[in-house]
Amino acid sequence: MSLVVQKFGGTSVGDVEKIKNVARRVAASKKRIDHVVVVVSALGDTTDRLLDLAGRVSASPPEREMDMLLSTGEQVSMALLAMALEELGLDAVSMTGQQVEILTDTGHTKAKIRHVGADRVIQELRKGRVVVVAGFQGVTSEGEITTLGRGGSDTTAVALAAALHADCCEIYTDVDGVFTADPRLVADARKLARISFHEMLEMAVTGARVLQSRSVEYARNYNVPLVVRSSFHEGEGTWIVSEDEIMEKAIVSAVTHDFDEAKVTVMGVPDRPGVAAGLFGSLAEANVNVDMIIQNVSEKARTDISFTVSKSDLDKVRTVAGRLADELGAAGTDFDSEIAKVSLIGAGMRTHPGIAAGMFRTLADNDINIEMISTSPIKISCVVRRADGENAVRALHEHFHLEVETE
Amino acid sequence: MSLVVQKFGGTSVGDVEKIKNVARRVAASKKRIDHVVVVVSALGDTTDRLLDLAGRVSASPPEREMDMLLSTGEQVSMALLAMALEELGLDAVSMTGQQVEILTDTGHTKAKIRHVGADRVIQELRKGRVVVVAGFQGVTSEGEITTLGRGGSDTTAVALAAALHADCCEIYTDVDGVFTADPRLVADARKLARISFHEMLEMAVTGARVLQSRSVEYARNYNVPLVVRSSFHEGEGTWIVSEDEIMEKAIVSAVTHDFDEAKVTVMGVPDRPGVAAGLFGSLAEANVNVDMIIQNVSEKARTDISFTVSKSDLDKVRTVAGRLADELGAAGTDFDSEIAKVSLIGAGMRTHPGIAAGMFRTLADNDINIEMISTSPIKISCVVRRADGENAVRALHEHFHLEVETE
Repeated sequence: MSLVVQKFGGTSVGDVEKIKNVARRVAASKKRIDHVVVVVSALGDTTDRLLDLAGRVSASPPEREMDMLLSTGEQVSMALLAMALEELGLDAVSMTGQQVEILTDTGHTKAKIRHVGADRVIQELRKGRVVVVAGFQGVTSEGEITTLGRGGSDTTAVALAAALHADCCEIYTDVDGVFTADPRLVADARKLARISFHEMLEMAVTGARVLQSRSVEYARNYNVPLVVRSSFHEGEGTWIVSEDEIMEKAIVSAVTHDFDEAKVTVMGVPDRPGVAAGLFGSLAEANVNVDMIIQNVSEKARTDISFTVSKSDLDKVRTVAGRLADELGAAGTDFDSEIAKVSLIGAGMRTHPGIAAGMFRTLADNDINIEMISTSPIKISCVVRRADGENAVRALHEHFHLEVETE
Repeated sequence: MSLVVQKFGGTSVGDVEKIKNVARRVAASKKRIDHVVVVVSALGDTTDRLLDLAGRVSASPPEREMDMLLSTGEQVSMALLAMALEELGLDAVSMTGQQVEILTDTGHTKAKIRHVGADRVIQELRKGRVVVVAGFQGVTSEGEITTLGRGGSDTTAVALAAALHADCCEIYTDVDGVFTADPRLVADARKLARISFHEMLEMAVTGARVLQSRSVEYARNYNVPLVVRSSFHEGEGTWIVSEDEIMEKAIVSAVTHDFDEAKVTVMGVPDRPGVAAGLFGSLAEANVNVDMIIQNVSEKARTDISFTVSKSDLDKVRTVAGRLADELGAAGTDFDSEIAKVSLIGAGMRTHPGIAAGMFRTLADNDINIEMISTSPIKISCVVRRADGENAVRALHEHFHLEVETE
């Protein structure tokens, strides 16, 4: 028996006509696949509209109540899609995160999935039904409603695919697949036929919007083959699979960028054990994801610590970093929103030295100054001025000839 | 310790400014009342907007999915109100019907409350919190989301007040109280200071929109004092209390009307036992509320059965009545949407004969033909042509001098 989880994002269910279109695609799938589970996001701009409402009611709404509010978006789209499927003559049933039993921790607005109970879904599938699940939402063991953060519906889909031992998880979105760079910035960006979980994970972490990093991590851990394809056109899309399924590895697969980070510097921190632990421990408690971290060479037993965070977390970071700077007797804090992070991703980097040098040279040749550097075995990230962001992406894409297929 | 349940309807939470206004009223209440539980409806036109979305997706959406869809409206407003209360410095927590444990039967879109679990609400009240509960929604023992039908938030409020042994249940709405007739039809309609549960129940059943009949029934059964007042102005409103608390009983308390019913006639039905049981049994199974029922005198072993239903149920009734007419070999069916039901309510009718005669005479004097009559000990209802509806209400209000206080 074949079983596939299909996820349709917000742009795919943007309005009533698009919901009907999704229903038709699901109905077509149901003819060739025995069991179909569909995960949906909120309709188009619903989440933004709800955020706006909350913003007009409260300057800092409690995160628990934000989850109560935001989780309604997916509940609306799942019900409408189930109706549209029934209208096409299919037997369909919608389920909330609570009904599926998508158990999460208590980290409101950024909850992590702890367990997915598949029993009820399997029961419904056995009745021949298409099961439509609200993405993005879960429930704590106390029955509190949580949400998984932006893009959380991808994670819902992959987690369900893993729990159901699905053949694969299909992510339908408004782009045709995963590209060597954002096609809006780079005209000759090329769609990748396949890419490894590890590379996709680095791409997601460094700013590729097509998939949320947690969903890729989940897919890798449970070895759920993922495919990203367009909800509007036919086409094979991009398969994200384990590395051993990819024969010819590209040295560099893609250039990614993230223009939504800010750089925070705590200056003149006493250079003694426990200082960094205190700072980043407090940020973790405040549920702030810290990305790159750099600590300068110590001078006179004092040092500067710089790190990047999402701009949306900057208010929380100001409070925490400011308090800690006071406690530590630091010289001060600095917050810089005008940065861009540009990254080079490629599984082949492991065995091909010199890629980093090529990257730094390319940026230098284009008069782009590097402010921070961070590396992993298959990734190099540089922070540059925001104004240089687009140029950096284009220059790197050209230098590494990403428009040409290497396989 | 004082404990009050306050319910705010859709017009009271019509937009962000009104939600903030409700939060201020709740905050003021919290100063004089130890424990406040707030029940909210969906924001303004949310329910209509969701109904419209569903209508564009499906001609006859499954009721289970309608409940999934509609229950989101109250979840949005409860979260926003909790945020607004926190913004005012109160400690507040919102809860869904499921979290409160408002257990209902499985009658989707018209579910009935079976049990209200108050434990979690009491826990939160003990922490000094204002508890904001989503009205209109419940959950079955299987975890399926249900809704209680239009006006169901009143029932939620009263059921919670009963379960919590509240001092009273305050219904805040867009009118100043319960009137002797709809003030939009009758210029000198008078606000009642108090009215008995029984009279209010008859008023609700016969078309007064201010309270849903089930909420009044619930209040009567559990003896929960109810008060209806404006969410926009101060003022005492109308108290709905048990009859023995009202000393001077008016003979006629109010005239009500319902312009949203339709008359159905099944003609030439075999006059034998079980026919009516079959018809109304099938309608009950289809979850259709039948109001008045009239069976004509039998001629040649055949009879006509007429009854009224809500216009919104007419499609369902057409299917059921048509099928049964075929099975019974009836002569045909007739559906008439152009009717008005006008009713006279008064606890004093029990001891004052002649009220019915006065009503019929008043209608006749105004050239209004009566098509159906139905009575209870404290109510007389007449079905007339829709075009005569407004005139009938005005004539009866004038004839029985309802603009004059009798106490």
